[in-house]
Amino acid sequence: MKKVAIIMGSDSDLPILKKTAATLKSFEIPYETHVYSAHRTPEEAKAFAQSAKKNGFGVIICAAGMAAHLAGAFAANTTLPVIGIPCRSSNLDGLDALLSTVMMPSGIPVATVAIDGGANAALLAAEILALGDDELSRKLDEKRVKDAAAVLKKDSEIALRIEE
Amino acid sequence: MKKVAIIMGSDSDLPILKKTAATLKSFEIPYETHVYSAHRTPEEAKAFAQSAKKNGFGVIICAAGMAAHLAGAFAANTTLPVIGIPCRSSNLDGLDALLSTVMMPSGIPVATVAIDGGANAALLAAEILALGDDELSRKLDEKRVKDAAAVLKKDSEIALRIEE
Amino acid sequence: MKKVAIIMGSDSDLPILKKTAATLKSFEIPYETHVYSAHRTPEEAKAFAQSAKKNGFGVIICAAGMAAHLAGAFAANTTLPVIGIPCRSSNLDGLDALLSTVMMPSGIPVATVAIDGGANAALLAAEILALGDDELSRKLDEKRVKDAAAVLKKDSEIALRIEE
Amino acid sequence: MKKVAIIMGSDSDLPILKKTAATLKSFEIPYETHVYSAHRTPEEAKAFAQSAKKNGFGVIICAAGMAAHLAGAFAANTTLPVIGIPCRSSNLDGLDALLSTVMMPSGIPVATVAIDGGANAALLAAEILALGDDELSRKLDEKRVKDAAAVLKKDSEIALRIEE
Amino acid sequence: MKKVAIIMGSDSDLPILKKTAATLKSFEIPYETHVYSAHRTPEEAKAFAQSAKKNGFGVIICAAGMAAHLAGAFAANTTLPVIGIPCRSSNLDGLDALLSTVMMPSGIPVATVAIDGGANAALLAAEILALGDDELSRKLDEKRVKDAAAVLKKDSEIALRIEE
Amino acid sequence: MKKVAIIMGSDSDLPILKKTAATLKSFEIPYETHVYSAHRTPEEAKAFAQSAKKNGFGVIICAAGMAAHLAGAFAANTTLPVIGIPCRSSNLDGLDALLSTVMMPSGIPVATVAIDGGANAALLAAEILALGDDELSRKLDEKRVKDAAAVLKKDSEIALRIEE
Amino acid sequence: MKKVAIIMGSDSDLPILKKTAATLKSFEIPYETHVYSAHRTPEEAKAFAQSAKKNGFGVIICAAGMAAHLAGAFAANTTLPVIGIPCRSSNLDGLDALLSTVMMPSGIPVATVAIDGGANAALLAAEILALGDDELSRKLDEKRVKDAAAVLKKDSEIALRIEE
Amino acid sequence: MKKVAIIMGSDSDLPILKKTAATLKSFEIPYETHVYSAHRTPEEAKAFAQSAKKNGFGVIICAAGMAAHLAGAFAANTTLPVIGIPCRSSNLDGLDALLSTVMMPSGIPVATVAIDGGANAALLAAEILALGDDELSRKLDEKRVKDAAAVLKKDSEIALRIEE
Repeated sequence: MKKVAIIMGSDSDLPILKKTAATLKSFEIPYETHVYSAHRTPEEAKAFAQSAKKNGFGVIICAAGMAAHLAGAFAANTTLPVIGIPCRSSNLDGLDALLSTVMMPSGIPVATVAIDGGANAALLAAEILALGDDELSRKLDEKRVKDAAAVLKKDSEIALRIEE
Repeated sequence: MKKVAIIMGSDSDLPILKKTAATLKSFEIPYETHVYSAHRTPEEAKAFAQSAKKNGFGVIICAAGMAAHLAGAFAANTTLPVIGIPCRSSNLDGLDALLSTVMMPSGIPVATVAIDGGANAALLAAEILALGDDELSRKLDEKRVKDAAAVLKKDSEIALRIEE
Repeated sequence: MKKVAIIMGSDSDLPILKKTAATLKSFEIPYETHVYSAHRTPEEAKAFAQSAKKNGFGVIICAAGMAAHLAGAFAANTTLPVIGIPCRSSNLDGLDALLSTVMMPSGIPVATVAIDGGANAALLAAEILALGDDELSRKLDEKRVKDAAAVLKKDSEIALRIEE
Repeated sequence: MKKVAIIMGSDSDLPILKKTAATLKSFEIPYETHVYSAHRTPEEAKAFAQSAKKNGFGVIICAAGMAAHLAGAFAANTTLPVIGIPCRSSNLDGLDALLSTVMMPSGIPVATVAIDGGANAALLAAEILALGDDELSRKLDEKRVKDAAAVLKKDSEIALRIEE
Repeated sequence: MKKVAIIMGSDSDLPILKKTAATLKSFEIPYETHVYSAHRTPEEAKAFAQSAKKNGFGVIICAAGMAAHLAGAFAANTTLPVIGIPCRSSNLDGLDALLSTVMMPSGIPVATVAIDGGANAALLAAEILALGDDELSRKLDEKRVKDAAAVLKKDSEIALRIEE
Repeated sequence: MKKVAIIMGSDSDLPILKKTAATLKSFEIPYETHVYSAHRTPEEAKAFAQSAKKNGFGVIICAAGMAAHLAGAFAANTTLPVIGIPCRSSNLDGLDALLSTVMMPSGIPVATVAIDGGANAALLAAEILALGDDELSRKLDEKRVKDAAAVLKKDSEIALRIEE
Repeated sequence: MKKVAIIMGSDSDLPILKKTAATLKSFEIPYETHVYSAHRTPEEAKAFAQSAKKNGFGVIICAAGMAAHLAGAFAANTTLPVIGIPCRSSNLDGLDALLSTVMMPSGIPVATVAIDGGANAALLAAEILALGDDELSRKLDEKRVKDAAAVLKKDSEIALRIEE
Repeated sequence: MKKVAIIMGSDSDLPILKKTAATLKSFEIPYETHVYSAHRTPEEAKAFAQSAKKNGFGVIICAAGMAAHLAGAFAANTTLPVIGIPCRSSNLDGLDALLSTVMMPSGIPVATVAIDGGANAALLAAEILALGDDELSRKLDEKRVKDAAAVLKKDSEIALRIEE
C-alpha cells in the first residue's frame, strides 16, 4: 500500500498530528513522520516532496500555523495530493493559517481540512487511498457505522443528562 | 477510469464549474454534472452520494455558496473523497461559504479548495485519480512544466511591460 | 400543546442546551432531547425531521458548532420552524457556526439566535407556540415583567457597588 | 388569520422587502408595511410593537442595516416572535447588521435570517403561522415540492450548459 | 456643574465602569450610575434619557455588550452627547458590541470609545464638559502632563529591565 | 460660539466631509477646514492641535482612511474633544480605519462615529457645543422632530410602494 | 549602488508594481523585474533568491495575492531584506494575502507593507539602501518636504472646495 | 556599527521586546531601549525620531498595541527604516494593532512583522544593517544553518514522539 507522509512545520503542532497518526494506524495505513519547515529547511522539504512519488508515498499531509506555507511548498514540488491542516497559533485564532493554506492560486491545489483537523486529514488520506483498495474502502464504511452508533448511544442517554 | 461528479448547489455557480469541467476534459477525465441542493433536493443529493461508489465515481466535487452545506451533505453519505468549492455570493465575500465548507467536524472530511477555485478542484481530483493511473500522473507533471514555462515567458517580457 | 425538539450535534453542546431545557420547563412546554449529527447520523436526523410534524412537534431547536449544518439539515426536511443555535467551538470564536447557521439560501429559513444562545432559543420557541396559546402568551409577558424587575433591583444597588 | 408586520428602518431597504411581501402574498398571508426607525421614530416603533398582539399581528419582520437595532427594539416591546433581516449597507458587507441583529442578550430573542434574506423572512413567518393553520402548512409543503422540481429541471439541463 | 450619567446594560459590565467612575471622581465631576437595559427595561431607559437634559446631566455614558443597542437607544431619546463603551462578552472578542455601537445611522450619533474603554469614556466626558469649565480644562491638561511623566519614568527604567 | 475644525488626512475624503460641513452650516456653527496629514505634515497638525483651544475651537473633527492615525494625533496634542471619522479606502472595507481610530489606548480618547459618518460627526459636534448654547440645543431637538416626520412621511407611502 | 529586485507572482499584479518601479526610478535606484511564482516556478524563485546577494541586489520586493507565499519563499532562501506587498485579488479584500505575508514564523522575517502598497515598498527599499548612501538619504528627506508641500497646497484650497 | 532603537508604547509590551533585545545582542548589534508613547509623549517621540539619524541609529523598531500609531509616528519623522511590531492586547487578538501598523498611506512606509513578532523584528533589522556589514551578513547566514539544523534534529526524533 502507498504510504502517507505526515509533515509538520514545527513540533509544537505534534498534539494535532498524533490524532493523524493514530487514525492512520487504526486503518493500518503506513506512514512516515517528519518535521520540515518551508522556511527554515526549504531544501529538505523540496527534496522530500520531489521524491515522494517514487519513494512510495500516495498522500502528503502538511500541518503548519501562522503564514502556513508548508502545504503549498510541498504541493509546488509534487503532483501527489497534498492535504493541509491549518494550525491555530497564539494569535488570530487560526484564521491566518486557514487563509494561507486554502487560498492557493490556480494550478497548485491544497486539500484543506478544518483548523487543527488532525483526524480528518487522516480520514481524507484514507478515502483517497481507498480508491485503489477495496479492503480500506470497506473499513472506512465500517467506521461510519461505528461513528453513527456512538452518536445514537449518546442520543439514548441524553434525555436523562439534560435534566441533571 | 473512475468518473468525477461535478455537483453544484445552484446554477448560478456554473461559471466557476465550467473551469472545473474544462480542466477535467483537458486530462480526458470523464465527468458527470448535476445540480443538487443540500436543502431543496436532499433526497436526490443523498441518493446520488450513496450510490456514487458503485456507479463508478472516484471523486465528488461540490460547489456551493452562503451556508454551503453541499459538500458536507455529500461527504456524510459516501466515503469517496469529496472536494468542496466555496463560492462567493453577494455578501461577505465568500467567507461564509469557506467556513461552512472547511470547518467540518471530526469524522467527515471535506477537501476544501480556495473560494471560487474551480480549476484547482479539478486538478485535485486529477491528482487523486492519478494515484492509480500512471498516464494521468504523467500528464499532471507535464502540465506543471507547461505552467512553469508560461510563467517564465511572462518573466521574459515583464521588464519591458513595467516601463510602459 | 405541541412539543419542542431539542437536537444537538454533539453532547459537547449539552451545557448550552441545559439552559434551553430549563427555560422550556419553566414555561411547562413539553420537549424531547436528541443527539443527531447532520453528518454522522444523517438518516436518523432526516427521519426525525420528516415525521416531526405528525409526531406532535411544533418547533425544532438545533445546536451545533464549526461548519454547523444541523439546523439547515432539519429545515430541509420539514416546514416546521427550525431554530438554530450556533455553538462556539475551540477555534474562530463561533463565527464559523454563526455563518453556517444563519446564511441559509433562499427557500429554507433557519431562525438563528446568538452564539451559545441556549435560553433565547427556548424563549423564541415559546413565543412561536404562544401564538396559539393565550396562557403561554401571558406567561411570556409575565417573564418580561420579572426580568425588568430584576434589572431595576440591580439598578437600585449599583450606585453603592460602583464605589466599592 | 393573523397578520404579519413588515417593518423597515429605511426605505432604502425596500428592494429586499419586496421579496418579503411577494412571498407572503403568494401564501395569501395578510401583511402591513411600515417604515419605523428605532432611532428616529422610537415612539411610533414602540407603540406599534406594544399593540401588535391585540391588533391581530402574529409575527413581526424587521429589516435594518448598519447598527441594526430595529428588530431588537421591537422584540423589547412585544412577546410576539420577531424576525430580523440584517441588510447590507455601503460598508462592512452586512457584518455590522448581522451581529447587531443576531447577538441579542438573553431574554429577548430575535429570529435572524441571512443578510438581505427577504424571502426567507417571509417563509419563516409562514412556517410560524402554519402551526395553527393546516392549509398554510400544506401550501408550504407544496412549495418545497415545487422548489425541488425547479432544481431538478435545472439538473436535467446542466450537462449541456456546462459544455457551452 | 453638569452631571454625567453612567448607564450599564448589565451589572456584569461593572468592572469596566468602575474605571469610568474613578476617573470622573478624580476630576470631581458628579455622576449617577444606573443599570438600564435597552431590551429589558426600555421604558425606564427612555424616561431617563428624555429627562436627562432637564435633570442636569451633560453627558451620558452607556456600556453594553453583544448586540449593544444601549447607547443608540439613549441617543434616540436625547440630544445630549452619548458616549458608547462596547463591552467584550464571552464570544467574538467584542467585535459585535463595537459594530453595534459605532455603526449608527445618519441622524443619531454615538461617540464610541475602544472596547472596554472605561477610563477613556470618562476622559471624553470630561473634555466635553471642560468646554464650559476652565478649571476642568486645566485639570485635563495637568493629567496629560502627569501621564507623560509616568511614561518618561518608565522610559528611564526600561534599559535595565529589558536586560533582566 | 466656539468653532469646529474639520481636518481631513487627504482630499480624497472630501465627499464625506462635505456632509459634515453642510450639517454644521445648517446649525449655523462656524467651522474651518484643513488638510493635514498625521504622517506627511506632522508639524502642522501638531501646531494646529496645540493652539486650537486658544484659537477659539471647541471641537475637532478628523477624517482619515487606512491606518487612520489623524484623530489620535490630534487628540494627543489637545484636550479638546476630538471626533474621528474612519473613512473607507480601496481595501478592507473601512475596517482598518475603524480599528485605527476607535481602539485608542487609555488616556487619549477619540469619539469615533461610523465608517464614512460625515453627517453624524457634525451632529455630535453640535450636541457637544449645545451644552453651552440653549439655542443650538433647541435646534437639535427640532431636527429630531423633522427627521421623525420624514420617516413618518415615508411610512405613509410605503404600503403602496411595496406593491409596485 | 545595490539593485532592487521587483518580483511578482503573477503579471496581474503589474499595475501595483508599476508604482514600485516608478518610485525607484525617481530615486535613480537600479532595479530588475521578474515574474516568478512560489508554486509554479519554485526552482527559478529559489535560484534567484540564493544568488541575489552575490548578484548585487540589496533588497528584494515580492508582490503576490491570495495565499501569498512569494515573499516568504524568497526570505527562506536569502538573508537580504525581503519586502512583501500583499495584493488584493477577487475575494476577501486582500486579507488572505496580508495574513499570508505578514504572519511569518520566527526566524524568517518579511517586511510587510500595506495591501497593494506598491509605492511604499519602493520607499522602504530606498530607506534601507540609504543607510549606506548619503545622497539617497538626502533625496528621501527632500521627498518628504515635497510631499508635505503638496498636502499644504491642498490645505490652502480646501476651504473653497468644501463649499462647492 | 549603526545602532538599533527599540521603542515600545507601553512597558506591558516588554516580554515581546526582550526577544528583540536578545536577538540583537546575539548578533552583537548595539541597541537602545525606550518607552515613548505616540499619544502620551508625542514630543519626546518626535524629538527622538528626528535626531535618530544623526545620533547614529540605523533602524528603529516600534512595538505597540490597540490603535498602534507608534511606528507610523516615528516613520513620519525620519527616513530611517522603521519596523513595526503589532502587539496583541486584551481584545481583538491583535488585529487592531496589525491593521493600524501595516496599512500606512502612500509616502510613509512601516516594515511590519507578525503580531508579537519580537525576534523577527530584530532579524529584519540585522538583515538591513548587514547590507553594509559583511561580518553581520555572514552571521545571519550562519544562524540560518543553525536554525535548519535544529529543525532537522527535531525531524530525527519525531517518528518516536508521535507514537508516544
